[in-house]
Amino acid sequence: MNDLADPTEEETGPDEAAYTLDRKAMTAILYAVDVGDRDQLVALLEPLHAADIADMLEQMNAYDRRRLVELYDKEFDGEILSELNEGVRDEIIQYLNPEVLKEAVRELDSDDVVDLVEYLEEPQQEAILEALEIADRVAVEQALTYPEESAGRLMQREVVAVPEFWTVGQTIDMMREREDLPEQFYHVILVDPKMRPVAHVTLGKLMASPRKTALSEITEPGFRTIPALQDEGDVAYAFNQYHIISAPVVDEDDRLVGVITIDDAMIVLDLEHEEDILRLAGVGEGSLNDRFTETVKQRLPWLAVNLCTAILSASVISLFEDAIAKVVALAVLMPIVASMGGNAGTQGLTVAVRAIATKDLTGANVWRVIRREAAVGVVNGLSFALIMGIIAFVWFGSPVLGAVIGAAMIVNLFVAAIAGTVVPVVLNWLKVDPALASGTFVTTVTDVVGFFSFLGFAVLVLL
Amino acid sequence: MNDLADPTEEETGPDEAAYTLDRKAMTAILYAVDVGDRDQLVALLEPLHAADIADMLEQMNAYDRRRLVELYDKEFDGEILSELNEGVRDEIIQYLNPEVLKEAVRELDSDDVVDLVEYLEEPQQEAILEALEIADRVAVEQALTYPEESAGRLMQREVVAVPEFWTVGQTIDMMREREDLPEQFYHVILVDPKMRPVAHVTLGKLMASPRKTALSEITEPGFRTIPALQDEGDVAYAFNQYHIISAPVVDEDDRLVGVITIDDAMIVLDLEHEEDILRLAGVGEGSLNDRFTETVKQRLPWLAVNLCTAILSASVISLFEDAIAKVVALAVLMPIVASMGGNAGTQGLTVAVRAIATKDLTGANVWRVIRREAAVGVVNGLSFALIMGIIAFVWFGSPVLGAVIGAAMIVNLFVAAIAGTVVPVVLNWLKVDPALASGTFVTTVTDVVGFFSFLGFAVLVLL
Repeated sequence: MNDLADPTEEETGPDEAAYTLDRKAMTAILYAVDVGDRDQLVALLEPLHAADIADMLEQMNAYDRRRLVELYDKEFDGEILSELNEGVRDEIIQYLNPEVLKEAVRELDSDDVVDLVEYLEEPQQEAILEALEIADRVAVEQALTYPEESAGRLMQREVVAVPEFWTVGQTIDMMREREDLPEQFYHVILVDPKMRPVAHVTLGKLMASPRKTALSEITEPGFRTIPALQDEGDVAYAFNQYHIISAPVVDEDDRLVGVITIDDAMIVLDLEHEEDILRLAGVGEGSLNDRFTETVKQRLPWLAVNLCTAILSASVISLFEDAIAKVVALAVLMPIVASMGGNAGTQGLTVAVRAIATKDLTGANVWRVIRREAAVGVVNGLSFALIMGIIAFVWFGSPVLGAVIGAAMIVNLFVAAIAGTVVPVVLNWLKVDPALASGTFVTTVTDVVGFFSFLGFAVLVLL
Repeated sequence: MNDLADPTEEETGPDEAAYTLDRKAMTAILYAVDVGDRDQLVALLEPLHAADIADMLEQMNAYDRRRLVELYDKEFDGEILSELNEGVRDEIIQYLNPEVLKEAVRELDSDDVVDLVEYLEEPQQEAILEALEIADRVAVEQALTYPEESAGRLMQREVVAVPEFWTVGQTIDMMREREDLPEQFYHVILVDPKMRPVAHVTLGKLMASPRKTALSEITEPGFRTIPALQDEGDVAYAFNQYHIISAPVVDEDDRLVGVITIDDAMIVLDLEHEEDILRLAGVGEGSLNDRFTETVKQRLPWLAVNLCTAILSASVISLFEDAIAKVVALAVLMPIVASMGGNAGTQGLTVAVRAIATKDLTGANVWRVIRREAAVGVVNGLSFALIMGIIAFVWFGSPVLGAVIGAAMIVNLFVAAIAGTVVPVVLNWLKVDPALASGTFVTTVTDVVGFFSFLGFAVLVLL
């Protein structure tokens, strides 16, 4: 985050940037919970946005959270539920008064209910679905027939569509009469007699045009539809790439089934990024608000994988035990070669993983990128070979040792550069998320090559 | 990325996901450039979105890019320029026919022109500003008076604002008469006599309400304004947190100066994430499309920092040269302890850096988070101490060696857990971007502590 920013930030201290829940508010709320003062609690939470109440609940410990939810009781609304992260939400659903839960869910739009129930266990899901009116329930159940993380799950089913031959006046009259207009919509969709979307008109244009204008004369350029089965990540990419505000979703026969708006796409984009960052660091689906046991469970597997690769590297070292016993300086210097390779590899793989995600690294330029990265690796390798060679020479008074570490540095940074690009590309080609596994592969390669090249050259030259 | 997705993806092979420019299209375009067939080039590019043309230009080598731009000539429009990343854009501006450049810039909205010129050198900036009509030029120059990466630079100046006491009918009539309505707008802003925004009405509500309805009766709840000096990262956060579609921007006297829409906020969110990911990996502002020399320049500094920290760790090892000479197994095992600490630390710091960025880690919960991470560190430490202790015992036949590596593992994973959370929190508190520097700090700590504790315990127990 940048800190040019908000002047108020300076005044309230470095800890409380704009939009951060401040500690005072939190303390007052916790006090109300402690003394069981329901009116005070309601008064304190009333001015807050549901998203901020959700954040606050996530930041509390589980004990305070439960007491707050139970005290807040009937005031707890559906908006807060849909803003919560999954772990905390599941927890709260369990001890929310069932009547309050039903009431809360009834207020929500169908796409928010889908979001709420899609990962719940069968009985909990059933309980929530039963609370819905029959029309909403059908809508939610239909959405659940689409695959997880597809456009069909993301879309809202409430659309504003009119025949393609209508005029501005007809459209406005229809909208004044219709009572179930969606809460938020930005386009009127033009459909053909088979309900296939053919174009759309912005509300702004509609509003600014005379009543007798044909809608077909004021349609927007660059109209796109989204297949209901498309992955939500690709949907988010398209919204961001083409600056789409809202787009109709169609089934296999190109018929209109719903609409996705940019605010939902933005949330997906945010989650996908989050996922990429955490996966690059070997943290499954981590969040600060997970319980202790979940956190341990998320982190252990990758540490276990790392233990295996570290043992692999150690066994490479053990091949050279005799050499190390004779020249202990080798043990001192060898981690430097591995560390530099690991860092260079991580730089390259991060750029490659991002470029794959943003579709900037494709079949069209992959060879050029690999050649370029290899060249960068050689230049970096030569630079650090020179620097580290001189340092080793001065440190241990051995020009040969300097030459050995220099040569190993060139080899390892070259290999790191190649591996940093090739590993994510190959994983992506194999349909494995490159963010998830590239790091382990690449650092294993750079550790093994680093130790092997340095100790190997040493054996050839020094002994 | 997930691959449920688009059925067409399966058919075209794993390399060409939805929206990826396929290799065939690229080949055809490059062929047209090779033979200098302008008509063919124009015909091939015509159906493409400006964003896709920009991506394609970024994926080409500089030689092809120049030939394409020169052949495309008059058809090159402003949209493509605003979709390009900075490096390639600056390059193209240099060899674009000045007349074509002027024409291209004239088509753009004022906020896109600001985006285009803000990082250009003085003479180039001047050339582009001169191409603009006087009103646009004034708008751009005013925007440039706001700090870099502020709401003032991000906003568009074209707004639709009406007196707060107007009716739906008056508003619609005004819009039909006005000729300079913005291309995209989603709300009509109600202002008081001093031009201070007091509320807004969605176009959907406006459209669905009878003409005599007062605007003040159909305003949206949760109305927010954005200070012009606010950091664009905080703006993007607010749009995402509160699901804002568009919001008025105000000056220090709360007067309306512009409006920011969600599509611009989404681009900022995307860039901030990109920045965070790359910084976590120690890559400055890298992109795959940077030139060779820029890439080297971006990567060298962090590798140099890493060399210094690696030498620091090596000097810790050199304190124990005698011990290693006597028990070479120490040299074999020591990288395992350091590597496990580095991994555990990176996991923790990534979660913490993300939580700081999303404002989930604040003064209100920092102590609880640190305690929780420390506990996770101890549990992970105990688990891997046991496993690695047994492995070392079996490998080298020494129970004492097993105990030594186990103890060092506990110490290092505990320290890694603390450092992984404390380092980013402290850096943030010092107003240093935690994404930028945490990794180096944390891995230095885990390397030093890893080597020191393992070799130190060994000296105490084994020798």
